[in-house]
Amino acid sequence: MQTNLRKELIEIFSLNKDQYISGQKISEQLGCTRTAVWKHIDQLRKEGYHLEAVRNKGYKMTEVPDQLTESTIAFGLKTKVIGKHIVLKEKVTSTQKVARELVHSGAEEGTVVIADRQTDGRGRLSRAWDSPKGAGLWMSLILRPQIPIQQMPQLTLLTAVAIVQACEQVAGVNTQIKWPNDILINGKKVVGILTELEAEADQVHAVIVGIGINVNQRLEHFPDSLKETASSLLIESGQTQSRRTLLQVVLKNIEKLYDQYLLYGFKPIKLLWESYAISLNSRVKVNTLQGSFEGIATGINDEGVLLLKKDDGQVERVYSADIKIL
Amino acid sequence: MQTNLRKELIEIFSLNKDQYISGQKISEQLGCTRTAVWKHIDQLRKEGYHLEAVRNKGYKMTEVPDQLTESTIAFGLKTKVIGKHIVLKEKVTSTQKVARELVHSGAEEGTVVIADRQTDGRGRLSRAWDSPKGAGLWMSLILRPQIPIQQMPQLTLLTAVAIVQACEQVAGVNTQIKWPNDILINGKKVVGILTELEAEADQVHAVIVGIGINVNQRLEHFPDSLKETASSLLIESGQTQSRRTLLQVVLKNIEKLYDQYLLYGFKPIKLLWESYAISLNSRVKVNTLQGSFEGIATGINDEGVLLLKKDDGQVERVYSADIKIL
Repeated sequence: MQTNLRKELIEIFSLNKDQYISGQKISEQLGCTRTAVWKHIDQLRKEGYHLEAVRNKGYKMTEVPDQLTESTIAFGLKTKVIGKHIVLKEKVTSTQKVARELVHSGAEEGTVVIADRQTDGRGRLSRAWDSPKGAGLWMSLILRPQIPIQQMPQLTLLTAVAIVQACEQVAGVNTQIKWPNDILINGKKVVGILTELEAEADQVHAVIVGIGINVNQRLEHFPDSLKETASSLLIESGQTQSRRTLLQVVLKNIEKLYDQYLLYGFKPIKLLWESYAISLNSRVKVNTLQGSFEGIATGINDEGVLLLKKDDGQVERVYSADIKIL
Repeated sequence: MQTNLRKELIEIFSLNKDQYISGQKISEQLGCTRTAVWKHIDQLRKEGYHLEAVRNKGYKMTEVPDQLTESTIAFGLKTKVIGKHIVLKEKVTSTQKVARELVHSGAEEGTVVIADRQTDGRGRLSRAWDSPKGAGLWMSLILRPQIPIQQMPQLTLLTAVAIVQACEQVAGVNTQIKWPNDILINGKKVVGILTELEAEADQVHAVIVGIGINVNQRLEHFPDSLKETASSLLIESGQTQSRRTLLQVVLKNIEKLYDQYLLYGFKPIKLLWESYAISLNSRVKVNTLQGSFEGIATGINDEGVLLLKKDDGQVERVYSADIKIL
């Protein structure tokens, strides 16, 4: 079956999600015979798609297999830009690296790179990120916002809000953010975000938002060094989660917040972020490359920079650090 | 002649710039015969190097050809890091592009890419930069500072100060800066700076500082569209300038300011920058992607962002714009 026809067929079912559509109409839209339509549908069923057929009404797609393919992601994806171009890979060193190459060859805003497995996944400050096959969402999103580079950390916070909301919506678990980009459930890290930037001094060329979500790992799947601090949606919610649904909701949430951000700026995002943040108004220890110090995390400023009130009353701006809640 | 030996020989003369060094000593240091030394020196002379030979004293290099080669640049270069690794190209699309590839393959801080000619040189906001063969310095410098991305525009301002000082030192012309990165002599643009960044939200991977200096173009060499607004050191100083000397002084100045910057922060650089800036305390028209407005340019803030006092008294932070002095 040709990929293009397949894509169009899925799109027809996606656009007519809750209604039957006749074989006749499908064959007209695809420009092929009804026999060909029937063969395509038969093929989809073999691949795990559920299609109801009712005489005189036609076909309705009721279920898609919980795999990540261009077709399954597209079915039911409610975005206009984010994720409309999906680059799926079975195995990559890291999705960030693939996305960076796409940026250089001119990839458009909203392009998403997803891999089933990363052999060299990375988090902040080049730390390794364990990305076993099929167990999570390992992805990178290309944005091309017209913002000053100073505001780029805001996109990390925006993404964190989108993902927190998605985890709550999909898995029904209470999810929180630890500045700058750790997403925790019951105090354990389930999600990592790594935002990378290509820019000139006064123009952003691209922001590449890397997202790693631990979805269906069981505790025994984690390396010993992570068992105390990391977790997955499966462990915290007690049930297997659909990576496909989660991905669709994450993309939808990001698009919604990103549209708001471009229209109204960071303020609405900031309020949401603060409502999910666990580290605010707490005494924290801040570890930076320049040294450690303690204080009260009083909030973030309009650029997304953490404000820390030290014991001498001075407010320090913290650009990059790991923080520990005391 | 082997490149390594050549490099070592130049280094010996560079380290002993004002004194004679015996053929015996050179042959010991290079590990070759005195006849070989003599042949090397003969070869250097044929290439335009001036070497004084005094019986019982030895050799002294008094002049190097005014060409840009690894050897001529190294001779007399007074830096420890900046420009210690030079990548020379005859023709490139743009030195920024070559430097970016070097960044990805791990090039060290201080690496400089220089091309005799760029076929697709770019300034800010992807504007074309005319880079004819041999007429200017077309170069890119790789830095890897541990600074928050918010502070990266400071490096554009630092570079501007270094170049202004170099133009004054080498060509003896009064040189000024128009925010953010235009360098003007007698009101005409002689230098462009384009600073590009690769970073994650809280860590700079590399800053690539692109520098284009019009050195020896005559007015008739400029395209008609630039004749009114652009100029060169030759035109403004009335004499041909040595690209090699200029390059060495630029690199030395950058290293000096960069060392200060890493030690003491932006404050000393800011003061210098302000002393060369023509746009401060003037009424300016600011053209941004979001629209135009007027006001008084009151200064730059600690991050290098222009502060503009509008007529209603509000102070606007200007991240990216072209400004016109009214």
